[in-house]
Amino acid sequence: MYSITVRDHVMIAHSFRGEVFGPAQRLHGATYVVDAAFSGPELGPDGILLDIGAASALLHEVLGGLTYRNLDDEAAFAGVNSSTEVLARLVADRLADGAAGLGPVTGLVVTLHESHVAWASYRRDL
Amino acid sequence: MYSITVRDHVMIAHSFRGEVFGPAQRLHGATYVVDAAFSGPELGPDGILLDIGAASALLHEVLGGLTYRNLDDEAAFAGVNSSTEVLARLVADRLADGAAGLGPVTGLVVTLHESHVAWASYRRDL
Amino acid sequence: MYSITVRDHVMIAHSFRGEVFGPAQRLHGATYVVDAAFSGPELGPDGILLDIGAASALLHEVLGGLTYRNLDDEAAFAGVNSSTEVLARLVADRLADGAAGLGPVTGLVVTLHESHVAWASYRRDL
Amino acid sequence: MYSITVRDHVMIAHSFRGEVFGPAQRLHGATYVVDAAFSGPELGPDGILLDIGAASALLHEVLGGLTYRNLDDEAAFAGVNSSTEVLARLVADRLADGAAGLGPVTGLVVTLHESHVAWASYRRDL
Amino acid sequence: MYSITVRDHVMIAHSFRGEVFGPAQRLHGATYVVDAAFSGPELGPDGILLDIGAASALLHEVLGGLTYRNLDDEAAFAGVNSSTEVLARLVADRLADGAAGLGPVTGLVVTLHESHVAWASYRRDL
Amino acid sequence: MYSITVRDHVMIAHSFRGEVFGPAQRLHGATYVVDAAFSGPELGPDGILLDIGAASALLHEVLGGLTYRNLDDEAAFAGVNSSTEVLARLVADRLADGAAGLGPVTGLVVTLHESHVAWASYRRDL
Repeated sequence: MYSITVRDHVMIAHSFRGEVFGPAQRLHGATYVVDAAFSGPELGPDGILLDIGAASALLHEVLGGLTYRNLDDEAAFAGVNSSTEVLARLVADRLADGAAGLGPVTGLVVTLHESHVAWASYRRDL
Repeated sequence: MYSITVRDHVMIAHSFRGEVFGPAQRLHGATYVVDAAFSGPELGPDGILLDIGAASALLHEVLGGLTYRNLDDEAAFAGVNSSTEVLARLVADRLADGAAGLGPVTGLVVTLHESHVAWASYRRDL
Repeated sequence: MYSITVRDHVMIAHSFRGEVFGPAQRLHGATYVVDAAFSGPELGPDGILLDIGAASALLHEVLGGLTYRNLDDEAAFAGVNSSTEVLARLVADRLADGAAGLGPVTGLVVTLHESHVAWASYRRDL
Repeated sequence: MYSITVRDHVMIAHSFRGEVFGPAQRLHGATYVVDAAFSGPELGPDGILLDIGAASALLHEVLGGLTYRNLDDEAAFAGVNSSTEVLARLVADRLADGAAGLGPVTGLVVTLHESHVAWASYRRDL
Repeated sequence: MYSITVRDHVMIAHSFRGEVFGPAQRLHGATYVVDAAFSGPELGPDGILLDIGAASALLHEVLGGLTYRNLDDEAAFAGVNSSTEVLARLVADRLADGAAGLGPVTGLVVTLHESHVAWASYRRDL
Repeated sequence: MYSITVRDHVMIAHSFRGEVFGPAQRLHGATYVVDAAFSGPELGPDGILLDIGAASALLHEVLGGLTYRNLDDEAAFAGVNSSTEVLARLVADRLADGAAGLGPVTGLVVTLHESHVAWASYRRDL
């Protein structure tokens, strides 16, 4: 099994609903350093799973739809907390269509690092 | 599948028995930077797998039972080498009970980084 | 010359005024991974510049006054952009008084990492 | 399941054939920071999966056959692009024999970091 | 004193002349992860030393003149080894003119990381 | 001004005397990831400040005199705490003689990372 991972980041504001979140119920924000890992059992005809430049461009495009925004105002998060887990899934789902066109990719893991001591991942098939 | 990982560290002394260890048979020590990764297929009602603050507190409590100690004197390692692998398993087993109470967690991976060039993991189900 | 550095982080929301900031004029946010480096030419009587635990506690206390907040609403940033540079200076200034009590510290550098590809520092004497 | 990972690096020149590679069709080069992760369900008699020193020596020996070379001139890559994926597989295959002798290892993942924002892995059984 | 640092990378081939280099006399290559740190005693009117986006764009442009090339064929290195130190100086000198236009910058440090265990810097005034 | 930095590590046991150290008064240990940064205003005849391989070998030799030991038993620390600051100075002083023979080096900074959230440095002239 092969995988290719590319890294980029987003900077957003948001707040959380639920007592479990304590002070994070207030409006605050985060930088998420985002790793998108594409995997598949075979390489394509050029000897690559997918082109790293194309994977980076796809990730940058998907993150461009989120960055420098207050997620509390985004329709994608209406009625749900934009937790690191939920964001990881959203990024993965938006990457999935584009990824299929880049090479023989069968799976995807998106990891969002919210600090040097905490991160979350979502893994799905294509 | 979702996962949440939190990072902390411990600083311990120990020695190893066995010729394979060479100079590490002498009393020495290590800082282990410890990553605890909790995973599960579903999120809980607040849109999270578990609260990052609660996961960090659990890890800190478990590591508090080990840090600033000579592991050669600890009952938990009587008759076994406190290798990075063995320590990773011990931390994972101690985390497992507490983790079950934090959210819909079904698996756990504990990774101990003993330097910038070597680390060990132990993976188990809950 | 000796130095001791400790690391912690804050998660905040803010917006910027000025065309140079482009999309960062919108309300967004950041995680800042914060390094506080204390320096001095001599060690104290215990053979340390300052206690790493005490330095970590001081940094955590100072960052506690900023984290999980919208900096646009904070009096400290009235009329100024809460840029990474300005925040680094504010953290350094707030650390300075406490640092003087911890040991023979004569200088301070505060670095705020806003992502894996950008960070800012402010250096001052005590 | 246990795993042990060790890190080393290689510095090589190469070029790629295929329009997808754009400017990387020119002769250029890379530092690959290489992580070799060995895994297995049980520990050996000394309480380790394998000796970290022995694993590091094995990785260093395998990388020694590649480093400070122009891969375009190496027989191992005749007719194929020495992409990060292909290199990860070659390193894994060369590690596999040696790894079997070091302990109860049943699987192997080799990851090559080509920069701070891109890396590739190859996973195989032993 | 304030500073802003941005990070990018280049991938190049080269060889060295001189017995001290041992196997690095052969044609090989490197990824350099490049940090450009701009410093100055005052902030500009927007409360920043310089815009991080503009600094990143300047660094990317300068590195674009080097990446995916064999430095042995570049006029800039005729008669000199393209060592990490020499490359750090070249990047710093090329950044210097552009940096002056971005804000009240008075100094510059360029660091090239050639692996996880070795890096070189060049520091100059503007 | 140029600099070259190389990284290695040591694993030691020790204890501290003094109430300020709290639980670190017990016998414990640490991995120190050690960065040795050599600096000078000019390059030597080969276009380098010093050879990275030679610098790495020098650092490895110096650290070899400390690693896998209980520093409480070492004569070098009789009557003093082997704090991170004191160790950084000792490593710097031992590197200084060797460094002078490697190239036109005029200064030295040694940094010991004791965890992902704390490190200490000692800077001296040659």
